[in-house]
Amino acid sequence: MTTSFESFDRMWADLEPIGRDPGTGGYRRFAWTRTDHDLREWFAGECAARGLDVVEDRAGNQWGWWGDPDTTPGVVVGSHLDSVPDGGAFDGPLGVVSALATVDALRARGIEPDVPLGVVNFVDEEGARFGIACAGSRIITGALDADRARGLTDADGVSMAEAWRSAGRDPATLGRDDEALRRVAAFVELHVEQGKALAVATDGGDDLTDPARAVAIGTDIWPHGRWRIDLPGEANHAGTTRMADRRDAMLGLATVVQAARSYAVALGCVATVGKVHVVPGGVNAIPSHVRAWLDARGEREEAVRAAVDAVSEEAARFGATTAEESWTPTTTFDTGLVERLHGILPDAPLLGTGAGHDAGVLATHGVPSAMLFVRNPTGVSHSPSESAGVADCHHGVMALTAVVTALSTGKAAEPAGEHR
Amino acid sequence: MTTSFESFDRMWADLEPIGRDPGTGGYRRFAWTRTDHDLREWFAGECAARGLDVVEDRAGNQWGWWGDPDTTPGVVVGSHLDSVPDGGAFDGPLGVVSALATVDALRARGIEPDVPLGVVNFVDEEGARFGIACAGSRIITGALDADRARGLTDADGVSMAEAWRSAGRDPATLGRDDEALRRVAAFVELHVEQGKALAVATDGGDDLTDPARAVAIGTDIWPHGRWRIDLPGEANHAGTTRMADRRDAMLGLATVVQAARSYAVALGCVATVGKVHVVPGGVNAIPSHVRAWLDARGEREEAVRAAVDAVSEEAARFGATTAEESWTPTTTFDTGLVERLHGILPDAPLLGTGAGHDAGVLATHGVPSAMLFVRNPTGVSHSPSESAGVADCHHGVMALTAVVTALSTGKAAEPAGEHR
Repeated sequence: MTTSFESFDRMWADLEPIGRDPGTGGYRRFAWTRTDHDLREWFAGECAARGLDVVEDRAGNQWGWWGDPDTTPGVVVGSHLDSVPDGGAFDGPLGVVSALATVDALRARGIEPDVPLGVVNFVDEEGARFGIACAGSRIITGALDADRARGLTDADGVSMAEAWRSAGRDPATLGRDDEALRRVAAFVELHVEQGKALAVATDGGDDLTDPARAVAIGTDIWPHGRWRIDLPGEANHAGTTRMADRRDAMLGLATVVQAARSYAVALGCVATVGKVHVVPGGVNAIPSHVRAWLDARGEREEAVRAAVDAVSEEAARFGATTAEESWTPTTTFDTGLVERLHGILPDAPLLGTGAGHDAGVLATHGVPSAMLFVRNPTGVSHSPSESAGVADCHHGVMALTAVVTALSTGKAAEPAGEHR
Repeated sequence: MTTSFESFDRMWADLEPIGRDPGTGGYRRFAWTRTDHDLREWFAGECAARGLDVVEDRAGNQWGWWGDPDTTPGVVVGSHLDSVPDGGAFDGPLGVVSALATVDALRARGIEPDVPLGVVNFVDEEGARFGIACAGSRIITGALDADRARGLTDADGVSMAEAWRSAGRDPATLGRDDEALRRVAAFVELHVEQGKALAVATDGGDDLTDPARAVAIGTDIWPHGRWRIDLPGEANHAGTTRMADRRDAMLGLATVVQAARSYAVALGCVATVGKVHVVPGGVNAIPSHVRAWLDARGEREEAVRAAVDAVSEEAARFGATTAEESWTPTTTFDTGLVERLHGILPDAPLLGTGAGHDAGVLATHGVPSAMLFVRNPTGVSHSPSESAGVADCHHGVMALTAVVTALSTGKAAEPAGEHR
């Protein structure tokens, strides 16, 4: 009989080549592309092989149900299959594959859930194509307006509506979906950790073997936001304009980059300038305008706000304006659910995270949600070198199995029971 | 009878709308585009209207000849009609229009040159489309290899060879053209000044009225070069990676930008970072790589070299490598020709420039060449706000007329003679 670990390993091997760039080894799995289609077919096939009923909601998220969630709302596990440009293999897929392996683990143990069990594949979590992260969950909760979603465009100017039509879907059906959400009594998203908290032992050194630190319980998502900083300059010839006569927008950028780092370090949050647009962008042209985006997050909202204000003030000395593009306050996962998870996995550390997730969007909407994080030995994420150890991935499946068993049957799981 | 000034003004008005961006007011006149075609048609039409024989060389540069340069090499005046992205109206066109107006001035005075007189429109001087400045003159002198030129690509991946075919030309004919160059006994390029040297009086204040400072004689082109600086980083998630665990390539860029400015100021040269490429370029991704281009020039070669070395050392502290993409030593214009121009225009200041020009490429190739610069009140260039006063433009036509008269007939010109 195939164990859930063998099933996990087989599914992992199935997914590995899909959307992988042969040059970088990174993934380019963007929403509503051919690659995304292949991943969705794969997901539907795995659900079908397990006898799960696959339904799609009005954003195109795929739900594989064991039992009828229209009678009784169910427990849902899963994550997403799309990636950032040149992303890693684990961010998203680890949660989907672990969820499917959990179904296998229950079956291997002869456990029949008392409530429906759902496995979900959220669409377009990274927002890599249309610029809005967690688009699938934001559309069904109404956090992202349907008209705005349809009008979002990718780098080639293709709108989400056009992308839907190209994928053989009717964009008119896209929108908020209360019915889909009513089916969810609780959602637990397992995800690779995107920092090194679990890989760092309490004494500060690396520890990649302690099984008690293989999986953590997510408590909250840090407050986070995105700001656009516009730095003015004056276009001029790089060869003939005296240094004294210049107004070079790039100098303001240099200060913004350094201020973001300094204030984040000083205030105990994180801040990043990852995207810039330089006008006119010629080698021999003094920049007349630089637009930079600042991403800032942290455990404490006041610290993040203070860091952004300080960067904004430094930028203002160069005549820059700072505009808030988005702001999400602290998302606290359902306290009762987190406490239950802590009871089921008493050794698991509790962890806040700086990354947004579909679980956060659902939590904000009032759906009881929580997360599990699997140890990441390097902390690297959104990169081809993102990784997690096989043993830790299997620990993740065991933890998720324990959680689902307890939530769907009221029984305690026997983590080692499968390998009798 | 139409004076050369009226003729100048009419031609200027003709050119004004061609390739102008209605949003910015700047010009987008790129080689071998529809706009470039319109400009070439306009040039051929103006030559034909004056009875000049238009011939094209193997780079597509247009030469309008009064007299037969295959019998006796001639005196050539002119410049280019293409622009940088969002460029000004004067850089290039001022020289072409002034050259055509000079033909009108000679005719108005009844002057018949003893040697052939040519008016030239060099193609692709700015290199805005294919990345190599002075492509037209570099191709015919062999400074730019024909195969390399054909293989250059624009931002859309279109090669120069394909652009030639789209323009109805045979790229196989592109290449070095000694025959075209043998026809040129001397080349004088009139150009708008791209700095403020003529607009600043000897006491340091602005002076836009002194007729003696309306036109300068170019003596040399500063040594100049272009360097590519590759700054490494490590891709990671902007929300979950502790500041201490980051290796952010953008921090190196900040230092490079500031070092370029500091060392240029300290060493008395100019240095610019006008183009950067950030990888992966996502708002929520720590930059794993930044590529920046450094443009540096100055009167003294040692100062430029020292500034670049210092910037390169600062970059190396971030693990960066610096590669020289191009280097052009000081280009000294033909000493005998400069002396003659100084004799013809004794009041005109002598001026070195930090910008490259076709006259520099021809000078390097051994064609006796020189330049005239027309005062630029703000010093702004490569920008929609680039300008020159009408009176100064007319002074430019008078100066060029005096030069052409002397060089092609041996007679001294009578600058005020036209307005008798």
